[in-house]
Amino acid sequence: MTSGAPRIGKLVVVGVGLIGGSFALALRAAGCVGQVVGVGRGRANLEVARSRGIIDDGIALDGDWTRELGHADVVLLATPVAQFDSLFRAIATRLPEGAILTDAGSTKQNVIVAARRHLGPALPQFIPGHPIAGTEHTGAAAAFATLFRDRNVVLTPLPENDPDAVETLSGLWSACGGEVRVLAPALHDRIFAAVSHLPHLLAFGLVDLLAARADAAELFRYAASGFRDFTRIAGSSPEMWRDICIANRDAILSALDGYLADLEALRGMLEASDGDGLLAKFAAARAARAKWLLKAKSASTE
Amino acid sequence: MTSGAPRIGKLVVVGVGLIGGSFALALRAAGCVGQVVGVGRGRANLEVARSRGIIDDGIALDGDWTRELGHADVVLLATPVAQFDSLFRAIATRLPEGAILTDAGSTKQNVIVAARRHLGPALPQFIPGHPIAGTEHTGAAAAFATLFRDRNVVLTPLPENDPDAVETLSGLWSACGGEVRVLAPALHDRIFAAVSHLPHLLAFGLVDLLAARADAAELFRYAASGFRDFTRIAGSSPEMWRDICIANRDAILSALDGYLADLEALRGMLEASDGDGLLAKFAAARAARAKWLLKAKSASTE
Repeated sequence: MTSGAPRIGKLVVVGVGLIGGSFALALRAAGCVGQVVGVGRGRANLEVARSRGIIDDGIALDGDWTRELGHADVVLLATPVAQFDSLFRAIATRLPEGAILTDAGSTKQNVIVAARRHLGPALPQFIPGHPIAGTEHTGAAAAFATLFRDRNVVLTPLPENDPDAVETLSGLWSACGGEVRVLAPALHDRIFAAVSHLPHLLAFGLVDLLAARADAAELFRYAASGFRDFTRIAGSSPEMWRDICIANRDAILSALDGYLADLEALRGMLEASDGDGLLAKFAAARAARAKWLLKAKSASTE
Repeated sequence: MTSGAPRIGKLVVVGVGLIGGSFALALRAAGCVGQVVGVGRGRANLEVARSRGIIDDGIALDGDWTRELGHADVVLLATPVAQFDSLFRAIATRLPEGAILTDAGSTKQNVIVAARRHLGPALPQFIPGHPIAGTEHTGAAAAFATLFRDRNVVLTPLPENDPDAVETLSGLWSACGGEVRVLAPALHDRIFAAVSHLPHLLAFGLVDLLAARADAAELFRYAASGFRDFTRIAGSSPEMWRDICIANRDAILSALDGYLADLEALRGMLEASDGDGLLAKFAAARAARAKWLLKAKSASTE
């Protein structure tokens, strides 16, 4: 067990996919959890989770799963955010006193709105979270204990939260190897609109555009590793990204408008064959990226 | 020596960087070349090339390098395209009869225009080419013999070319492990505007945009692997990409305009919270990319 890390008895993971499953595995590896119960839509996925030792027991979402909340110490919602409304409604009256409810949703303001609408007296127990980790693979089969190692885990606590509970949750994520950071919900959403949601939109857009062209087969024949990396995020779940776009619409629109204005400026330079202007932009971008990679590298080896 | 592959005596590589150096190493590995002379601006780089066994001799571009053309069988121009005008001028009267002149430039129509302007009677000896390979590293130190293995190598021959010479050059690239494909120059430029030049512009643009924001430090702190892959091509040489943008301006403008229109459509869906529209686009993109990866994989294991 990681020294100083909290230890909990029972963890309930709703949505035992890559994120939920990896959280359970990481807490088990750190010796921080006694029992894990998984809740999910797919029985086959729950069976995978059980056979891989991710969960001790699995129960289907269409069954009487809220009885499992009875002795829960921590409940993690790791389903698509679109399901949170009904989950909050179901949990509201069943969450035991002192239990921590948290989530792994990619957007935070909309999740908090839903929590405020549905959780009632249980609201102070909900600590919103967002682990910044993932791969292009999904499901319990893709989960692994080190997914969160050296990754940012953002918490956006509510004014109503008990500081001790926030510390406990933070300790659990630290035990998973995560770098816990606290942000205001609006700032979280603005940051991820720019560095994650917008790039996803751009990558989906480019692949879709090329695929719809009459010469698509020829285009893809010559697409190489640069294109592959640029569009890797267009391999992500369309449903999840639709939900994120709707959930974080305003912040994404704002980031997109900034980008469109920037592209128009680049277009103007290109049309004018303004080599100096293009060079300045490209050089600034390359330098900024190199600086970022250097910082990210030194941070992960600290 | 690869069976059936052509064998040449002397290769002159102008610009002994990643591409030029790897071409020499690959031909050496295949036993297809006798002597390699490197020509370049940087003496230190030529020394690296000699010490790594890439070239037998090196000569500086500001020296009397065209005397090295005397017994050349193949001359590869692998410098930035911006230098081609002066290279063509210097080579025009010194290229021996029967020698093949080729290049590795990322754009083809503008290179052909320059060749027609400067090469005079040597024009029929110039066979334009573009190996679709690269890494983010540059210089002779980055060269390696297998860079072109299973990569497309595009030739855009001129009507004036001798078919036997085209076959010889094609055989040399095949001996390097490349998949040789012949395209019309305009089609080449249109294809690469869409699958390479536009993505580079988009990646440079996004990094530059975020780096210029007041909250840049915070944004980059939370940028993760998706952002890293999406922007990897923004780590490329700003000078090279300025040159490519200017050289292939019209085709890139056309691709960019298509993309801007597509982004505006996406923006409209986002503003209208049109989940079905977004989902359809994202799903189409993901499916097209998965199909492409599958094809690319089966092609590379054929």
